[in-house]
Amino acid sequence: MIDIDIEELCAWARESGDIALRLFSHARARRKADNSPVTEADVAIERLLVERITARYPDHGIIGEEQTQFDMTKEYVWALDPIDGTASFVAGLPVWGISIGLLHRGIPSMGLFYMPLTNDCYWAIEDRAFLGHQPICVDTKPEQEWHSEDWLAIPSDAHRRLEIDFIGKTRSLGSAAAAICYVARGSALGAVLTYATIWDLAGGLAILKAAGGVGVTLAGQPLDPRPLIDGRALREPLLFGAPGTVDSLRRHIRARC
Amino acid sequence: MIDIDIEELCAWARESGDIALRLFSHARARRKADNSPVTEADVAIERLLVERITARYPDHGIIGEEQTQFDMTKEYVWALDPIDGTASFVAGLPVWGISIGLLHRGIPSMGLFYMPLTNDCYWAIEDRAFLGHQPICVDTKPEQEWHSEDWLAIPSDAHRRLEIDFIGKTRSLGSAAAAICYVARGSALGAVLTYATIWDLAGGLAILKAAGGVGVTLAGQPLDPRPLIDGRALREPLLFGAPGTVDSLRRHIRARC
Repeated sequence: MIDIDIEELCAWARESGDIALRLFSHARARRKADNSPVTEADVAIERLLVERITARYPDHGIIGEEQTQFDMTKEYVWALDPIDGTASFVAGLPVWGISIGLLHRGIPSMGLFYMPLTNDCYWAIEDRAFLGHQPICVDTKPEQEWHSEDWLAIPSDAHRRLEIDFIGKTRSLGSAAAAICYVARGSALGAVLTYATIWDLAGGLAILKAAGGVGVTLAGQPLDPRPLIDGRALREPLLFGAPGTVDSLRRHIRARC
Repeated sequence: MIDIDIEELCAWARESGDIALRLFSHARARRKADNSPVTEADVAIERLLVERITARYPDHGIIGEEQTQFDMTKEYVWALDPIDGTASFVAGLPVWGISIGLLHRGIPSMGLFYMPLTNDCYWAIEDRAFLGHQPICVDTKPEQEWHSEDWLAIPSDAHRRLEIDFIGKTRSLGSAAAAICYVARGSALGAVLTYATIWDLAGGLAILKAAGGVGVTLAGQPLDPRPLIDGRALREPLLFGAPGTVDSLRRHIRARC
């Protein structure tokens, strides 16, 4: 694994956060081809990060939500979501952030997710995960100890796509990377997504794995992000949490026909 | 209606927000009799607000989530939720705030809700509602114009208690007052609650009404907050939005048996 200067990466994320905060609450969205929103902030942040990364790591590829896609055959490829949670950002909701992942041969090996409004910076390299300077790890308690105050992060189409039988609370927050990071820090017991791309998964997945968590399909297969490297979306339910937790959760979540 | 100094009230809310922010992310909760969490911040903020209100409005009653209850027979009674969204606050989630409502003969006539992390201050007196200095109003578009990017705020037990047939997104944010205020500003199309008390309703309801919205039961009856003045909880589904919106929403939301 190459050497990554995390302090420098955090500085880029904070610089990106400042751009976003200046536009927050009065951002205007236009619609992309897939009908998802994009703002001036998404575009400006992606441009900034691509500039910084190409200057510092000229031999690496980059894929970004806002159309960046080059040198995808390189050993190292960065996956960027300039604002993960653009719809929340536009709605004036506070859960959104800047997601930066580094793929090594397609596998997330470094991740950083920064939420400007809470000033939370999650990051991981290989098997060490942190929130700021604090090491983090997933909640590993077994199903018999789950209680009414435990919570799952669920997607915004859960009311249509999922049946969820869970004793605790569900929260739909509007950012896939945030959902995964709340699991990584042991705040959420687990997370469910019904839609995922490499740019909203790469950073969070590196952080989650380093925090002791995993991503699996509803059938229990390990989530393999490598086929997503060309930018395609995965549209099936995915579960995130401690290995024992996702095993148990699989029995409580069902895709609706 | 008596004269209320909104600038002063905003200053109290910001002072309260500073207390909350100092404890955010490292707040420790204890459980109340009903198993809901309470932190040092909830208690300190309620104490501060009660002190300020009794000094300035000595003839008024006050009810607060953290056990304040006096002079409930007065013409004017303040309903306080020092942190609406305590569970979110403890979980490190950003949607929570300070809710202050003023009841005139049991009817919410003034409301203020302040979210420290976004610095959003919603407030209303009688028929004027604002976010900061900006007038706000609910989204009144008819059902045939609802689309996939519209969103409803739903409660954290929706997966157990509700069937929701809605074309757009659902978000569970962790604060009843915030849910109602996102409706009042026209960001959310509507909100659903399954649990409500006078302290988490009073402020938001005054703001929502002034922004052109209403609260109704699932059967379509106007929400009457007066029976809640003794602190009891209402445990039935409630809908919030523009009058036409809640009428339409009633056909899309069903309580589960």
